[in-house]
Parts: sequence; structure tokens; C-alpha cells
Amino acid sequence: MPKIRLAMVQTNPVVGAIDQNVTGILARVREAADAGANLIVFGEMCVTGYPIEDLATRRSFVEASEQAVERLAALIHTAIPEELAVVVGHPTLAQAPSGWAIAHNSASVLIGGKVAHRYHKHHLPNYSVFDEYRNFVAGNDLLSFQFKGQNVSVVICEDIWQEGGPVAAIRSKNTDLTLVLNGSPFESDKDDRRLALIRKLALSQQTKVAYTNLVGGQDDLVFDGDSLFVDKNLNVVGRASQFEEDMLIVDVSETSTLVSDHRVTRSDDNWQVWNALVLGLRDYVVKNGFKSVVLGLSGGIDSAVVATLASDAIGAANVYGVSMPSRYSSVHSMGDAELLAQNLGCDYQTIPIESLVAAFEESLELSPIAAENLQARMRGVILMAESNTHGHLTLTTGNKSELAVGYSTIYGDSVGGFAPIKDVEKSLVWELARWRNSWAEAQGQKPPIPENSISKPPSAELRPDQTDQDSLPEYDVLDAILDRYVEKRQSSVEIIQAGYDAKIVEKVINLVDRAEWKRRQGAIGPKITGMAFGRDRRLPITNKHKG
Amino acid sequence: MPKIRLAMVQTNPVVGAIDQNVTGILARVREAADAGANLIVFGEMCVTGYPIEDLATRRSFVEASEQAVERLAALIHTAIPEELAVVVGHPTLAQAPSGWAIAHNSASVLIGGKVAHRYHKHHLPNYSVFDEYRNFVAGNDLLSFQFKGQNVSVVICEDIWQEGGPVAAIRSKNTDLTLVLNGSPFESDKDDRRLALIRKLALSQQTKVAYTNLVGGQDDLVFDGDSLFVDKNLNVVGRASQFEEDMLIVDVSETSTLVSDHRVTRSDDNWQVWNALVLGLRDYVVKNGFKSVVLGLSGGIDSAVVATLASDAIGAANVYGVSMPSRYSSVHSMGDAELLAQNLGCDYQTIPIESLVAAFEESLELSPIAAENLQARMRGVILMAESNTHGHLTLTTGNKSELAVGYSTIYGDSVGGFAPIKDVEKSLVWELARWRNSWAEAQGQKPPIPENSISKPPSAELRPDQTDQDSLPEYDVLDAILDRYVEKRQSSVEIIQAGYDAKIVEKVINLVDRAEWKRRQGAIGPKITGMAFGRDRRLPITNKHKG
Repeated sequence: MPKIRLAMVQTNPVVGAIDQNVTGILARVREAADAGANLIVFGEMCVTGYPIEDLATRRSFVEASEQAVERLAALIHTAIPEELAVVVGHPTLAQAPSGWAIAHNSASVLIGGKVAHRYHKHHLPNYSVFDEYRNFVAGNDLLSFQFKGQNVSVVICEDIWQEGGPVAAIRSKNTDLTLVLNGSPFESDKDDRRLALIRKLALSQQTKVAYTNLVGGQDDLVFDGDSLFVDKNLNVVGRASQFEEDMLIVDVSETSTLVSDHRVTRSDDNWQVWNALVLGLRDYVVKNGFKSVVLGLSGGIDSAVVATLASDAIGAANVYGVSMPSRYSSVHSMGDAELLAQNLGCDYQTIPIESLVAAFEESLELSPIAAENLQARMRGVILMAESNTHGHLTLTTGNKSELAVGYSTIYGDSVGGFAPIKDVEKSLVWELARWRNSWAEAQGQKPPIPENSISKPPSAELRPDQTDQDSLPEYDVLDAILDRYVEKRQSSVEIIQAGYDAKIVEKVINLVDRAEWKRRQGAIGPKITGMAFGRDRRLPITNKHKG
Repeated sequence: MPKIRLAMVQTNPVVGAIDQNVTGILARVREAADAGANLIVFGEMCVTGYPIEDLATRRSFVEASEQAVERLAALIHTAIPEELAVVVGHPTLAQAPSGWAIAHNSASVLIGGKVAHRYHKHHLPNYSVFDEYRNFVAGNDLLSFQFKGQNVSVVICEDIWQEGGPVAAIRSKNTDLTLVLNGSPFESDKDDRRLALIRKLALSQQTKVAYTNLVGGQDDLVFDGDSLFVDKNLNVVGRASQFEEDMLIVDVSETSTLVSDHRVTRSDDNWQVWNALVLGLRDYVVKNGFKSVVLGLSGGIDSAVVATLASDAIGAANVYGVSMPSRYSSVHSMGDAELLAQNLGCDYQTIPIESLVAAFEESLELSPIAAENLQARMRGVILMAESNTHGHLTLTTGNKSELAVGYSTIYGDSVGGFAPIKDVEKSLVWELARWRNSWAEAQGQKPPIPENSISKPPSAELRPDQTDQDSLPEYDVLDAILDRYVEKRQSSVEIIQAGYDAKIVEKVINLVDRAEWKRRQGAIGPKITGMAFGRDRRLPITNKHKG
């Protein structure tokens, strides 16, 4: 009996760059065929990139996607003599549009130069960061087809996260192999949840499961790849790389065998988060046509971590650090900033803001809070001037804890097109800094982040001897309350009952609610938790609800 | 036979202010009862305000809403001896939550101190600005009940905008009167579309229809009221005020009679748009606890219109205008700004930016574009300093055409918490200015907006002799292309086929796509069209699609 040699290809498509994505797919199909693969599966919406959001409601875009798939089918057939089945994801026009939504989220099986089979995603995620019920029309029927004597079924991503629907029919089709096309964004610990779902599917439907994910950053999402093949005994036969393009090849039979050289176990947590942040930043820079980034280096931990992430993402030679001391900046801060830049090997310049602040103080009567904000805004103006003059992308260095309580100056330290650690709470910023230094040591490299930036008490340095804890609780307490209020959606009553001080809880909640307008105007940045600020958490600005 | 005297009450609830909203409802119930009403109906989600967005996923919030309704039922029963039925909208916990969504969007009929009947909205809008499928669980069954010998049915808003569902059962229940609770935001011409739907419902289901809407601004939405009663012959028996709280009272019988003093015809288009903008601005200010606003007055048309809107919204005494001339500001511009302030009677001060710009130019090497942006940013810093020092809300004055093509400086003229004309295209800004001046004249008042601000060529005045048309097409052409690309979602091919110059079309589309990151960081402002920038139009920033 002829065998299926399956190639699971995780590509990094660019949203909207249909031609470029198709060219990439064709190249990987050739590669897979050269390795003897005859069934080649890609991730969800690999033709258009994902998520396409309201592009799905533009008829011309959906039509262009469909035409590209037909072109791809013909190109594969012309280029490769062997009999291949190639499965790709893309939008298609729905027969019964809903008015707003006109398209399906589909998978097409390309055989013999044509679209031989097509599947439309049934379960449309419309929670968290997803708006698929908004933008797609649901399909209803499972796709099952015979290939090389085996029964193959096809479903898409959310279909295996919900009960019922086409997935429930997989077993009744005597499916040998189920292909799941995914656009599943990274979150901490999501790898374990995915594997559990895949095993549940394999067990309940008595099928082998090939779970193929996208990889790459798209705005606030990072697709981590980590594609998995699980056999009927629930064993992980192989898992593809995380955070990079890859191809996993498996000979599919009763005892499926890994052909390519791949691991079967998951990666370390901090390694995963660090690399998610690096990839999210790199792809935002590259896919938006930037070549370099600029950021303020204060000597503090946040800017140190962001500068290190940026150096890992695009190379230190493309990172421009600016120290912008005021009268309140301590000597050690400036020293820490300079040391960081030396360790990384990035560009470093100093532009004092004293004379700029003075010019404003001559023109305006300022309250104390206005005077503090003014310093942060002078720095914002400098960074944007550097960006406008040299074409750098400006990075803003706020962390999730600060964003939560509004501990930042809008149009000041918040300026920038991308916020690499906006979903990283302060406690985790420290942990990642220590992890990155240890990792460097383990590689025989010099730890990049100055010990002093990690160990000193955090301060905005906008007035004499200021520390963050003048106005905020200790970060471990703050982060614990934020986790309950924001991520777990607990009420103030529940949080207080869990043992936290009532006054602190109410203060924190009040700060979070009042900062909504600032967060709305903030830069996007990579989501790494179950509840990121942004489209993951949609709350009114005008909102009198307490607790 | 006892008669139904129906009071349709359009209140202006504040999102999250449950106690305050309930107090308001109780007061209006007393008023209605004093006027002899026995059936009293309010708008959708009148208890919590609308839309509550992800607050619907906070269990404590939904529970508090349900408890408030039970309290309200008891309070009405205690306070008012007559037999009343009061219909209010609010969220309730669903028996079968979907995981993310835990609540229904419900209407409760309060009789005899209890919730006598309850309805759960069936059609959950999840397009345009709405995310109801995200946040609510759909109900399935129509509510019909007998009151004063008549059959009354209850549905909610979107239920009458879609085919099928509970609405289709209204006729089979021999319904005399259908109550529709609405949270229907204003758009130009939406009044005509609503009336057509109401008449379609009255005709197909052979029922009188009482369409009760909310009123008030909530973030980017303006609920315009304009509640309508339509009889079985499809006549408008009465329609409530637009843009203010009101109560429409009708004796419901075969020949329904208007009891309160109300119009039956619709209002003038420009009057509607102007008042929508005024209400949206006023409610953002008031509901967020501001007392005053600050804005830059350049002498141009946009800031003139925004200052006039602000004066109409909260009184000129609470409007602070700042003229911030640079070396490129013309004498006539400063004169026009001052004249506007005099006409309105608002505060006016001048803060030149020359010395501030000079201080930066000494510290930094600036490219020409950076030097232009720097001026706008100096103004932004001044406005935010005024805001921080005096507690004013900063208004940003960008119009929809500028926002579309990114013709603004981020962190410069874009600073502010609210953008009153962000959904008003430039052509309409001029039209509204002329309309407002004529309206003043018709009232025997002095037209507020200087003729010169309306008639002169628009200019950002960031370099010598600059006009907008140096880098943009004429605004009538620009607005026509934007209408096709943004609102009608046409492709570049379609727009060019309609007769527009290909180079201009491609330039405009490219500008629109590239400005997405700036729009994402922009202030919210009232939606008045079918496609506003913001949650109405969700597109990726990273997006290589052309046309």
C-alpha cells in the first residue's frame, strides 16, 4: 500500500502580502516534495496571513485570495511531477453572506492543479482577541477524503476547542489522519493546553492528529509554531520548532515515524516568553519596513529589558539608545544606561532635557504634576524627533503593571509605535532580566543587563528621591491584585476576601479603571498572557462601575 | 375595558452607575404615573447604561444589575399605589453560559413588586461597533403577556433589524402592542431606516409598535432618542425629542392617541449632526467628571467648529482656547482665532512657541519633516500642561479626512482625550460651520465662526505659504474617494472605474493604509456615519494589501 509521507509546514506569512505568501508556500512545497512528502499541510490562512480582521469584509480582498489559491494549485501541478495533495488556508466568498460577513475561513486541498476539496471553519472564535463571528460565515460539514488509501479529515483551529460541530463526525468517517490548520497565538502555558486538546481529539475520534500552526508576529499577536503530530496512542511523534519557520515530516502508518529531526518535549517557560517577545518585536519591525529602533535608556530595568529584546530581535547595530537626563536623574542611572549600551553594543547618545524644560517653565505656570509630566514629554518629543529624522521605529518601554495603573505620562514615556513589554507584569520583567543574564552566562557570553538595573528600587526619577513605591504598593502585591482583577475578573469583594488590604485593593482598582483612556491611546505590543490590554479586554472609558 | 396609557421614557443612563440610573428610572416612573400612565417602558440596558462591553463578562457586575432590578421593582411597588407594569433593560446571568459570555441582554417586566416576566434578546449584533455575540448569550423565546386586556409583546433592538427569531411570532400571539427596547446609536439618516423597519414590523405582524430608544453620549456613540410610536395603519402617532431625555405618552387603543405634546416629523439633517456632536461631547465631559475643556485655536475651520461645539455643549465660560503661533503663523490666523473667541465669549490666551522650538533646535539635528512635527508637538505639550495644571479635558480638533490620510502629527495636534469632529469629513466641517452661522442668524444671534476661517484655503502653517493642497487632492475629491474606499469598501479598481484619477486614488489609499497606526493611538470621538474610524473599522496595522 502506498504510504502518506506528511509534511507539516509552519510558515510566517505577512498579512495582505498574498503574492509573497504564495511564493513562500510554493518554495516549501518543493522542499517537502524533495524530501519525499506527498501530503503537505500549512497553517490557517497561510495564503493571506492571519488575522485579517475586517479585510475579510472587502470583496476584492477575498476574491484576490481565491484567485491566488487557484494560481498556486496550477503552479504546483506544473512544477512538481509527483502526485501531491497540498492543504492551505485562506478566505473564500460565502454563498450566503450575513450582510456584514461575506467570507468563510476555509481550507482548500489542491490536487492535480485544482482545488479538489474545500472545508469551511465551523466554530468561529469571537472572544478574547478574536472577532471571527464578526468577519466570517460559519461552515457546517466536515471534509473527509481518501488519499493514498487512507481517510483524511480536515478541520480548522477553533473547531477542536469547542464541543460538537464537524469534529464530532471524524470517527464516523473512519478517519486515519486528521489535519488541523491553526492560527493559534502564543500565551504562557498554551502549549500544554493545546496538547491536551489534541490528545482528547485523538482519543475521542480514534485518529492521528497533525496540528499545524502558523509562526510569526502580527501586530499584537505572536504565533509560535510548535506544530505537533500525535498518534492514536496519544504519543507526541514530533513537534516543530517554536518561534521560527519549520517543517515536520512524518511517515503516517499504524506506527507513525518521524522522518525529520525534531524534539518531542516542550521548552522552558522563560525561554518561551523571551522568544515570543523577540519574535513579536522583530516581525513588527521587519513587516512594517523599519530597519532600526530608537528608545530612551533611563538606567532602569524596563528600558534595559526592551533594549536587550531589541538587540536580540534585530541586532544591536540597529538599536539606538538615548539617555535624556534631567536634574533629577541620578549619576548611577546614567552609568547603568551607558553600561547596558556597552554590553549590548548598541548606539548610545546623551541629550539632556534641562534646557528644554527650562524653556517651557519660562512660558507656562505649571502645577507639580504638570511639571513631572513635562519632563517625560520632553523625552517623548526627542525620541519622536529622532524617529522622524532617521526613520527609526520608536519603542515605548512601559510594562503591564504600569499600564494597568496608569503609571506613565501619556505623550511622554508612552510615545512609540510598539510596546514590547506591555503585556509583561513588573515581577516578570525582573524575572526575565535575570533569566536572560543567566542564559548569556550559560552560553559563555557577558550578561547584558547591569546588575544594578535589576537590584535597585524602581523610580521614574521625575522629582527628588522618588521611587515607584511612593504611590504604588510593592510590585508583588500590585501584580497579585492585578492578576485577580484583570485576568481573573474578580470583584473587589472577592480580592479582599482572598486576604488583600481593602484600601489597597480599592486604590488599585480605581487606578486601573481611570487609566482606560490612556491605554486606549497606547501602542500595541505582543500578547503573552490570557488577558492582555488591548482588544483582549474591551471596556468603556466612561464607566462608573466600582469593583 | 380598562385602557393602556403607555409612557415611553428615553433616559440618559451612565454606564456602570447602576444606583444613579435606578434612581433616575424611579423618578421617571413617578412622573409617568402622575400623568396617568400604567405601562411604562424604558430603553435597552437602561439600568446599566449601554454598551457595557466586557463588563458583561464580570459576574459581580451582572449580579449587581439583577439585584438593582429587584430593588427597583420593590421600590416602585412601595411608592406607587396604582397597578403598573414597568419594562426595563439590563443584563442577567444566563443558565447556559458560553464560557466567555455569561449574561443575557434582557428586559424585565416589573409588576406588583416583582419581576413578573423576562425576555432575552435573540439577535445579537456583532458587526460595525457592536460586539454582542462576544458578550451575550442569545435568548430564543418571544415574551408576550396580557395587560389591561391587551396582548403585549417585548423584543429588543436588533431583534427587529434581522429576519426571523422571536419577532416572527408576534402576530401568532395576537399582539396588540409590541414594545421594542433600543440602544440604537445615531448615524446620519438612521431615523429614516428605523422608521421603515418599525413600519415593516407593524405591517407584517399586525401590531402597534412602541420603539423606545436611549439618549446620551457614551464614549464614541451618541444615542439620539427619537423614540417612535407607530399604529397599525403605519402612522407615526408621536416621536419623542432627539438628543435629550423625554417621555412620550400614548393612549393605546384601536385609534391610539398622543397624550403628550410631541412632533411627528423628523428634524433637519445638519441640525441632527450638530446636536449629535454637541451631546457626544457634553456627555463625555460630564460623565467623566470634567468641568472644562482646553483646545488650540489656530484660526482655521476645524478648531473654530470644535470650539463652537464645545461652547454649545458646556457653555463658553468653560472653554479655554489657546493660540500658539509659530514663525509660520499668519497674522490673519491669529486674528481669526481671537475673533472666534470673542464671538463665543470663551477664554483666550496666546503662548508663542518660537522659543520652545528654538530650545529643541539647539539640542537636536532635525530633518524638515521632524521640524514641522516639532512645532505641532510643542503645541501638544502646552495643551497637556494646561490640562494637567487646571484639570481641563484636552480636545483634539482633527477631522475625518485628515485622520483618514494621516494628515496630522501624532503626539502633536492629535493630543487629547476627545476628538469631537473625528467622524466629520472636511466637506461637512465647512457645511456645518455655515449651517451653525445661519442658525445663529435665524435666532437673531451673531454668527460665531469668522467668515475668513470658512473661506480661506486650509493650511497647517508648519512651513512658509503651506496649504493642505500641497500634499493632498482638493477636499471634495479626497472626501469622495474616502467615502468609496472607507465607507463603501470599494477597491482601487472600482474607484478608478468610477472615474477618479488612478494616481490620486492609489496615493489616497496608500495614505489611508499607512496611517492605521496613528489612528489606533487617537482619541475617541462621536460616530455620526455608517463607518467611523475606531471599533467600527478594525484593520491590521501590519498589512501589505494594496487597494
